[in-house]
Parts: sequence; structure tokens; C-alpha cells
Amino acid sequence: MTEPLTTEQQNAAFLADWEVHAGFGAVPGTIGVDRQAGTAPDGEQRRWFAELLESHGFTVRRDAIGNQFGLLELVPGAPYVLTGSHMDSQPTAGRFDGAYGVMASAHACFRVAEELRANPERARFNLAVVNWFNEEGSRFKPSMMGSSVFTGKMPLEAALETTDHAGISVREAMGGLGELGDFAFPEVASYAEIHVQQGRSMEEDGVTIGLVDATWAAHKFEFKVTGEQAHSGSTLMVDRRDALLGAARLVVAARELVDRFEPGALHTACGELNVYPNSPVVVASEVELLLDLRSPSADVIREAHTLLMETVAKVEREDRVQIEIVAEHSWDRNPYPENGVELARSVAEELDLTHDRVMTVAGHDSTNMKDTVPTVMLFVPSVNGVSHNLAEFTRDEDLVAGVDHLTGVVRRLAGGALA
Amino acid sequence: MTEPLTTEQQNAAFLADWEVHAGFGAVPGTIGVDRQAGTAPDGEQRRWFAELLESHGFTVRRDAIGNQFGLLELVPGAPYVLTGSHMDSQPTAGRFDGAYGVMASAHACFRVAEELRANPERARFNLAVVNWFNEEGSRFKPSMMGSSVFTGKMPLEAALETTDHAGISVREAMGGLGELGDFAFPEVASYAEIHVQQGRSMEEDGVTIGLVDATWAAHKFEFKVTGEQAHSGSTLMVDRRDALLGAARLVVAARELVDRFEPGALHTACGELNVYPNSPVVVASEVELLLDLRSPSADVIREAHTLLMETVAKVEREDRVQIEIVAEHSWDRNPYPENGVELARSVAEELDLTHDRVMTVAGHDSTNMKDTVPTVMLFVPSVNGVSHNLAEFTRDEDLVAGVDHLTGVVRRLAGGALA
Repeated sequence: MTEPLTTEQQNAAFLADWEVHAGFGAVPGTIGVDRQAGTAPDGEQRRWFAELLESHGFTVRRDAIGNQFGLLELVPGAPYVLTGSHMDSQPTAGRFDGAYGVMASAHACFRVAEELRANPERARFNLAVVNWFNEEGSRFKPSMMGSSVFTGKMPLEAALETTDHAGISVREAMGGLGELGDFAFPEVASYAEIHVQQGRSMEEDGVTIGLVDATWAAHKFEFKVTGEQAHSGSTLMVDRRDALLGAARLVVAARELVDRFEPGALHTACGELNVYPNSPVVVASEVELLLDLRSPSADVIREAHTLLMETVAKVEREDRVQIEIVAEHSWDRNPYPENGVELARSVAEELDLTHDRVMTVAGHDSTNMKDTVPTVMLFVPSVNGVSHNLAEFTRDEDLVAGVDHLTGVVRRLAGGALA
Repeated sequence: MTEPLTTEQQNAAFLADWEVHAGFGAVPGTIGVDRQAGTAPDGEQRRWFAELLESHGFTVRRDAIGNQFGLLELVPGAPYVLTGSHMDSQPTAGRFDGAYGVMASAHACFRVAEELRANPERARFNLAVVNWFNEEGSRFKPSMMGSSVFTGKMPLEAALETTDHAGISVREAMGGLGELGDFAFPEVASYAEIHVQQGRSMEEDGVTIGLVDATWAAHKFEFKVTGEQAHSGSTLMVDRRDALLGAARLVVAARELVDRFEPGALHTACGELNVYPNSPVVVASEVELLLDLRSPSADVIREAHTLLMETVAKVEREDRVQIEIVAEHSWDRNPYPENGVELARSVAEELDLTHDRVMTVAGHDSTNMKDTVPTVMLFVPSVNGVSHNLAEFTRDEDLVAGVDHLTGVVRRLAGGALA
């Protein structure tokens, strides 16, 4: 039996693997990555990650939607403590978002596995690391696809048939990478996830470990604005039905909605907008756009929704376009289980790490998992809260503290906590 | 020698060929077409058109940018009367825009050729029909590419190296169709073009032949709005620098500019807008958009330009984005030569066709040609002025009247008018 690693050696091992991982899909001249779900860089990091897991004695399996698991059976037939996040990224985004959580989970499991191999009587559950497929939803919509299929919230076939802008399906993309399997995951005892905060409150408050206790409420729309194709030079202005004008009014209205509420009470955004025919001398006949409302308060969402629908009606009337809601989904302010928050708090106390309860504005795979199994969701700080940006950055000391903390959480979960 | 065709037979021949031509790139279930420059349907109609020209004794040649010519030498070594327009279309557009002008020119030349073969002493110049490459500029920018290269306004190499959104160059697209040649066109005596009006004034005024006497003034911008990529849910609103918001404000401002002037004095448009990274949960870092100002009055353009720049500065300041003018070009109100207008008027009188002077808002290949050679530009009416739209429509009686009129113009030009 080899000598256990010192904490310093463990941290160095994590940072070394982390550095290697950040090279997959690295964008030259930046510290960020472009590693969308099902692309070649996604496949490369998956192959490397499988080797890493196997080198630590874990068995690698893939389920039918391409979630990648590393399993270690310590207690034959017992349920698994599952921990992970996602390694796919938005186009040109940060190296930390998601990937940090998967790598931290792997190293937390490596450490706990070492402890439990030495002291098998402490293990009540088995250990599993997960790299969820397509959390970002940039290439294939919707987001959180892998964990949605895993938790039965999205049908497998619908996910596999989803296509990207080039018409390539999830089945083709992930099949082509050899990343679709037939593994049926055994019983999950509990789930833990760690992520960089996508905001700057923890950094400002000097908090190292965020105990995530709730998700913001949200209402997301996919609008289709329909006008009429026309010559954009010669057509009289009064004759036009300009879909891009209608869409632009919604983009502006979304921003102006924010000022109707207290600062911080409402976030709005349009991230994606597609124009047809999108040609220099043509009034657009059709524009599709995504528009999101988010708030810690469900009341604010409801009021913003009402105001937005008034704007939609006004734009339809005044700009003579039709605005259709092609799809929408919404969720209320959604708590994480209190016993998970308490467990995380207790581990932070034990490790003497500064900590505080925080909400998450963004969705995570844990948002799906918490509805199904006991769940712990953790944050580490992000410098200036920069997110979905190549320059996203978290300090090594915070990365390492997060792995330490997650290790404490996984240790307790494997010993039976929250069971 | 065969018997000359009656007018009725000539009209029937034109309409029959016209009907065949409208089938190239036809969009099922509509009366429109999708026949962008350098695409397969563009290649198919070119091959058919070459056969049509050859069947009437014309020789087909292509120059280095893919302008397609049909030549008939009647007076050895003499300059050519050139007449034509373009057969490429915007994506999902009308069958008449451009293509009518080429087909009308072909039939006008067939008729005049028949007359001049019978009476060679009346010919002072030779006859040539032209199908200009890429007038629309939708797939390959800028518009009027073929006539710009022909008149020396755009370097050949720059045009050949222009790429579409998929990265395919003009050289590759047109070379692949076998439509690039090395023909050096001989001296041009004069140029004539007929087009459907892209407006509804002639239809409303009951005018069959429009004598185009000027182009509107225009100022066209390609803007790049630069913000900063961020998480569109969690990033604080005050921290955002949203390029799509900045772009949307410009789209709305362009429309609102119109209301600062008399009705009809200013047309504005944004037809193309591209968002990066255009992903659901990402604040856009970069948006490129085209924005046009057009007016019959150069003063109005200047004032609108000033107001637009004030808006640009305000958006930069308030939304914390940068707005760069990547490219711009402008032209003043631009007259067509008066002797050409007078020639067209005289032909309309002779044929007893209602006629009036009109301006063109849109650019045409004749806009290039008129700066180089004596030029006549003609319009026939368009129902409701519907343009760059699958439903664009002009009545057969107007099509036929236009061919009659153009025949009269070409006859006079071939006989030495405007020389």
C-alpha cells in the first residue's frame, strides 16, 4: 500500500489535472475555452477524463444520452453518492464554468476513495463522478439536457433527435464521438455539485464557500415576430411590416422593464436573435428571439410578465407585426433542501472556511437532481463575477478550498449523511 | 427568309420564354423564386438563357466576373448597344426583379435584330444582351458587383475573392458553375435597362412606362456594436455591456428618425443583423448590422445622418458599448442623363403608352452604366409595389408594353441615337 498523499500533494495533483483539462478546446491567446457539447474538443476531453478516472480505479460508463460516469463500488449493491457537473461550455467561454465542478468531484472522490479503501467500515454508499451531457444548451437546446433525461424530465428520444443549426442531431454528434452507451445508473443515494459563482457577491463579501439555498424564479420566452418581406429601400415606410423592428422593440423593452423595479429585483436578457432572410436590402419577414425574465421574487416575475405582454400587444398594433410565443417555460423561486445546506455549513465550519448562504440565478444540473434525491449545491467565488466570457477567473486558493470542502461533503454522504 | 412575326406572335413568344424562365429557382407554392447569385438555380437559368440566345443567332460570352453576354454583330467592328439587367434574386423574392429586364432585353434585341437583318442599312451599332452577375448582393456583398467590375468601379480580384457566409468565394461558386470566362467586351455605344418599379406610384398614377430621371440619395452604414460576453442570467444589469441591446436601440432609432421628417422624405432600414455568440444564456459581445438612410433630398440625408450620430453617441454612453462604423458609402441624388429620358419619352409617345418621369429609390446596374455611357432606364408598374417578396407581381399587359417600349429604344440606339 502506498503512503497517503499530503494535503499539499493532493492540491498539487488537482491543480495539475485541472491545468491539463483547461487545454481541451482552449481558445488561443485567452484563458478561456470553446467546447460546446458534442464537438470534437468535447470528445477529446471526455476520452482524457475517462483515462483519468480509470487510472484511479474507477469504471467508466456512458448512458443513452451521453452522460459520462466514473464508478467505484466499495459496498457491493449499495446505492451511489453521485457528484459532478458538466464539461461542455458556451462558445468562447470560461474554463471554470461546469468543468471545475467535474474535476473537483473527481478529485474529491479520489480522496474519499483512498480513505474508504483504507477504512472500508466507514463506507455506506458507493462513489460516482458524473460529467453531464450538454448543460449549456448552446449548440443543442434546451440546457441541462443530460440531467433532464437522467431525471426523467425530458424524453430520451426527444433529446437524441434535437438538432443544431447545421441540422446535426445529438444522436449523430454524440454517436460520432463514441459517447453514447447503454448504462442504466443504479440507485442514487445523494448528489453533490460545486460550481463557480456566476456573480460577484461572494467575492465582495469575502466568502469562500457559498451554500446554495435557492434558485431564482424565471420565465423564458421564445418569440417569433412575423412581418412581411419587402424592398428595404423603395417600400414606403407606412407599407412596411418589419419583423426586425418589432424584435428590436422587444429587446429594448426587456431592458427598460428592469427600471420599473427595485435595483437587482429583475434581470432580463435576449441572448439569441435570428433574422430571416437577413439580407442587406430586404425588410425582414421573420425574427426569432429568446427573452428571459429572472428574479428572486415570483411576484416580480409575474408583474414583469404582465408588462411585457402589454408591450407585445403594443408592438403588434403599432408596427403591424405578429408576435407569437413559440415556446415558454417558467419556474418559481425554488429552494434547495435545507438539510443539504446544513450539511455544507457544518463541513465549512469544520474546515474553518468562510461561508454564507447564496441564491443561484443560473440553473445547474443540481436544479434537476434536487427534485429527485438529497442534494448539496456549493459555490466558490469568481473574480468580478465574470461569466460566459473567456476571461472568467477563479483563484487557485479558492479552487483548492472548494475541492477540500466538496471532499468533506462527499465523505459524509458516503458515510450515510442525508440518507 | 421566314415571314416576320406579328406583334401578337412576338408577345406570345416573350411570355412563353418568360414563363419558362420563372421556373428556375421557383419556390414551391408561390409565384416567386430563390435564385441567389452563383447558386445552382442561377447556373441552370444561365445555361438555358445561353441556349435561347444562341437559338436566335447570338454568340454567348462570359467575362472574368461572370457577366453573361449575348452578342450579335451586324456592323463589323462597330460598338455595341448593350441592354440587360440581372437574373439573380434575393433569397425568396419575386420573379420579376431583374429577370424581367434581361428577358425583355433579349426579346427587344431579337426583334430589332430581325428588322436590321432585313434592313442592314439601318444598323449603325451592333447588339448585345447582358445578364449582370450578382446585382442583389445578398449572398456576396456588395450589390451590383458585375456591373461595378465591368465599369472599373470595383477591382476584379476583390470581387472574385469575396466570400459568402459559408466561406465560399465568388471564384469558387462561379467557377464551379463554369460561368467565368475571359471575354473582353468591345466598345459600348449606349446602355438600356428596364425593371419593374419597386414602389407603387406608377400603378396608382396609371402610368405604364416610367422614365427614370434620378436615383435617391443614400447613406449606408455597416455598424459593429461591441459589448462584453457575460452570463445573461446572473450578471448584474449594471455590469452588462450588451451589444444586442445597443444594436436594437439603433434599429429602433432608425425607424424613429423617419418621423422627424415629412412623410416620404426619408426611408430607413436595417435588413441584416448578426449576433455573436448568439447563444441562449449569453449577453452578446458583438453585433454587426447594416443600416441605410435614403431620401430624394441630400439635405434630408445629411440631417438624418447628424441625428443618427447623436443616437450612436448616446447609446455608446448609456449602454456602455462601442459602436464602430466598419464601412459606409453614400451617394448624392444622382440624375440619369436627360437625353436618355427624352429618348424614352419620345418612344412612349410614338407607341401611345402612358408615361411619366419617376425616381428610383433602389440602385440598378444602370446606376453604374450611366456614369460611363449614354443610358436609358425604364420602369413598368408593380402591383402594390411589392418588392423583394415572393408575391411580387406585374401584369402581362405591362410586361408586354415594356418589351414593346424597350424594343423602340433599342431600335433607335442601334440606329445611332445618343451617339
